[in-house]
Amino acid sequence: MHGKKNVHRPIPTITAFEQSPDRGKGLARDMAVRWALEEVGQPYAVRLVSFGAMKEAPHRALHPFGQIPTYEEGDLALFESGSIVLHIAEGHAGLLPSEANARARAITWMFAAHSTVEPPIVQREIATYLEHDQPWYAQRTPVIEDRIRIRLGELSRRLAEGHWLEPAFSAADVLMIQVLRRLEGPGLLEEFPNLSAYVARGKARPAFQRAFDAQLAVFTGEPPGK
Amino acid sequence: MHGKKNVHRPIPTITAFEQSPDRGKGLARDMAVRWALEEVGQPYAVRLVSFGAMKEAPHRALHPFGQIPTYEEGDLALFESGSIVLHIAEGHAGLLPSEANARARAITWMFAAHSTVEPPIVQREIATYLEHDQPWYAQRTPVIEDRIRIRLGELSRRLAEGHWLEPAFSAADVLMIQVLRRLEGPGLLEEFPNLSAYVARGKARPAFQRAFDAQLAVFTGEPPGK
Repeated sequence: MHGKKNVHRPIPTITAFEQSPDRGKGLARDMAVRWALEEVGQPYAVRLVSFGAMKEAPHRALHPFGQIPTYEEGDLALFESGSIVLHIAEGHAGLLPSEANARARAITWMFAAHSTVEPPIVQREIATYLEHDQPWYAQRTPVIEDRIRIRLGELSRRLAEGHWLEPAFSAADVLMIQVLRRLEGPGLLEEFPNLSAYVARGKARPAFQRAFDAQLAVFTGEPPGK
Repeated sequence: MHGKKNVHRPIPTITAFEQSPDRGKGLARDMAVRWALEEVGQPYAVRLVSFGAMKEAPHRALHPFGQIPTYEEGDLALFESGSIVLHIAEGHAGLLPSEANARARAITWMFAAHSTVEPPIVQREIATYLEHDQPWYAQRTPVIEDRIRIRLGELSRRLAEGHWLEPAFSAADVLMIQVLRRLEGPGLLEEFPNLSAYVARGKARPAFQRAFDAQLAVFTGEPPGK
């Protein structure tokens, strides 16, 4: 399943928000999938889904939790951006090391991005969006931010002077950088200069740029490159 | 890497809490790894780590976030229980379908367990342990519980009358059942009878029982089977 095969396969179709809730910042979860597909040079189609349609039966047949993205390739239908990125990485060269131990380490970082680093970050977003009017919001925010700082500090110490999580760029960086991008702006990420530089390094990749432009074009209604 | 190979490999060593914070209920994250190892018949060694040692440099060299479990096998060191279970499943028969599409679907469920179903459940635990004395605790708890109910409802509808997430038991069930076990007791899980039955089905497996007894023995100080 993995290795340096770029075998012929059907053009996959992914789903994305019809109306980007982040106004084209590329934080929705289709962005990691687009980025991975661009890294490996795999063309893809996009089907846009409205907030309403996401929660209805046809979309839930693809994604039981009523979210985006999904990934359809011939008879295969997948959900969960981490799993989709892993599937892309297994089917194409360039996103996972070929040496078995290095590959396993990169996959460990894929799980770490979504299971360990992201949860407190998403918690702050949930608080901002859903608990902003609650009486506890102001008091609780610094508590969550300290939890985020702990994870960022640990990640920063491990990354140290490294360019990527493993020696070569991998699918783990796609997921981790997308997680860290959720923090851009409010200052937390900037407390860790090597993490800021790591995110900037990822964003400078041509494949990131192509993916970013494609998702932005959905929001602006202008084709990419305009 | 995957398939029906039970090749000779070094006995892996995992880490677990020296003092189980759940008093042997088998909710710590070594449990999924133990269960997976028992399912495939792979013997393993356990190194116990104190709360203090987990946060110190030697353990952090294995686990940058200072947690358990870790997994050492020859020169390979991994962390993240989801990734470790996937690694075990790839190296042994019995935890992932051999057909490529079915395998990808099972891996999607592995990510879904940790990235989509677990976060609100862990949020409630964090609130219970760390925010119990905060003024917002009582008001916020039902808000979190409703988020858990949404996810459980979605999972329940997808599982329907199925025995496992995919037609055959897989590594996805190991992870998902361990996530759902965190809810046993307080009633939320019992609102969804097919999920309760699913968890019971997992717990009835001999490999689960062996893994559970082994982690309980760490807490009681009695060897398993006593």
